[in-house]
Amino acid sequence: DIVRELENGCTSSALLHGLKVLITAGPTREPIDPVRFLTNRSSGKMGYAVARAAAQMGAEVMLVSGHVALDCPVGVRRVITESAADMLYATCEHAKQADLFIATAAVADYTPVDVADRKIKKNAATLHLEMKRTTDILATIKQEYPHLFTVGFAAETHDLMTYARSKLERKNIDMIAANSVAGGKAFDQPTNALEVVWKNGHTSLPEMDKQQLAEALMQLVAAQYNQRKLAQHDND
Amino acid sequence: DIVRELENGCTSSALLHGLKVLITAGPTREPIDPVRFLTNRSSGKMGYAVARAAAQMGAEVMLVSGHVALDCPVGVRRVITESAADMLYATCEHAKQADLFIATAAVADYTPVDVADRKIKKNAATLHLEMKRTTDILATIKQEYPHLFTVGFAAETHDLMTYARSKLERKNIDMIAANSVAGGKAFDQPTNALEVVWKNGHTSLPEMDKQQLAEALMQLVAAQYNQRKLAQHDND
Repeated sequence: DIVRELENGCTSSALLHGLKVLITAGPTREPIDPVRFLTNRSSGKMGYAVARAAAQMGAEVMLVSGHVALDCPVGVRRVITESAADMLYATCEHAKQADLFIATAAVADYTPVDVADRKIKKNAATLHLEMKRTTDILATIKQEYPHLFTVGFAAETHDLMTYARSKLERKNIDMIAANSVAGGKAFDQPTNALEVVWKNGHTSLPEMDKQQLAEALMQLVAAQYNQRKLAQHDND
Repeated sequence: DIVRELENGCTSSALLHGLKVLITAGPTREPIDPVRFLTNRSSGKMGYAVARAAAQMGAEVMLVSGHVALDCPVGVRRVITESAADMLYATCEHAKQADLFIATAAVADYTPVDVADRKIKKNAATLHLEMKRTTDILATIKQEYPHLFTVGFAAETHDLMTYARSKLERKNIDMIAANSVAGGKAFDQPTNALEVVWKNGHTSLPEMDKQQLAEALMQLVAAQYNQRKLAQHDND
C-alpha cells in the first residue's frame, strides 16, 4: 500500500527513520568492595520509554543501560554496564556510528578512589570513603563527536530551569530535558513531567505516563534535529 | 482424612506448624542525599526462598524486606524497609511475637554520618564521605529477646568457616548459614551453597537451586529448634 506508506511517512511514526539513536539509561554502580556499592534511585523507566519511542519512530536504537528491573524494549539492542567508567567505555564504542545521542542515565558523579578486593570488615566504628569525580560521559562524547546531536537529562531537587539552562550552555549540547526529583518524585514512578530546553526555546511537558512523555519528547527531539539538518543543508 | 493429616504431620510439610517465623531479606539503602545511596548486591532471593519454605512447612511468616525485584511469596506477610535503621525498627516490632528469627538480610554495616537534604552538586574534585557503624540488628534482637531461636547468615569472600564459627559465638546465636560471595558468587544467582554451623555441629549443603537449598536449611533449623524445645522441656 503505497498510499498508506506515504501517510505513515507523514506521521511521527517515521520521523526518525533510518537514524541511529544511542541512549544511556538507568543508574550506575560504583563498587566499594566486592559486595557494597554506591548507586542512585534511577529505575531506568524514562530512558527505556525513550528507547521504545525512538524505535517506534523508525530509529535504529542502541541502549547502554545500568542494572535495572526492565526488559529490553522490542526492536532495541541493549548492553548492560556496571560503573560510570564501564558505561563511558560502552557509550564511546557506539557513539561513532550514532546520529543522535540521548543521555538519560543517572551516572555517578563520584566513585571511590580505592576499591577493596575483599569485603571490608566492620571492625572500625567509622569509615572514611574518599571519592573522586568520574569522567563526564556527555562532555566526553560531545568533545569526541562535536557534531553529534545530543540531548541531556537533568534531575534536580531545586532550581530546575536555572540548572537546565546552565547545563545546556556549559556542556554545549543541543537539548536538555529536566525533571524535578524533590521528595523522591519521578523515581520509579509511572508518570513524570519534563521541562525541555534548547538554544532558542523551551517547552513544558506536563505530568503524564512516562511512555506518552517519551513520545512527546522524541517528537520535539526529531523536530529540532531535522531543523538543524535543514539549516546545515542551507549553509552548504 | 485423619490418616493423611497424621501422615502430613510426620513429613517436613508441618515441621513448623503453628510457629511464628520472622525473616529479614534483601539489601538496605543508606541515603547520602535525596538521590544517591549506598547498598549491596543482595537480590533477596535466598531470603525469599527461606520465607516460602517456612510457609510451606506450616509457619506463620513475617518478612521484613529491603527493596528487591521479587514478589511476596504466597502465604507470607511482608513489609518493605529502606535503611538499616528502618529495618531494625520493623524487625524489633515483630520480634516480640516470633518463635524463630532468621536474619538473611544484607544489612549495611556503615551509614553516612550526615544525609544532605539536597542533591550534592559535583563541583568539587573529591568527596569525603564519613560513615558510622549501624546498629547490629541480630545483636539487638538477641539482647532484647535472648530466648528467641535465632539463625544468622554470613556472606564472606574469604575464610568462610572461621568467620561463621566466630560470628555464632560472638553473637551467641543458635545457627549460622554461611555462603561464599567471592567473585560476586551467590548474588542474584539461581543457585547457592551453604555451610550451616551450630553449637555442636555443622553440615555442608552443596550447590543447588535456592528454593531446594532453603527447604534443606529450614529442615535443619526445624530439627535444631525442636531439639532445643525438647531439651528445655526435659529441664523443666
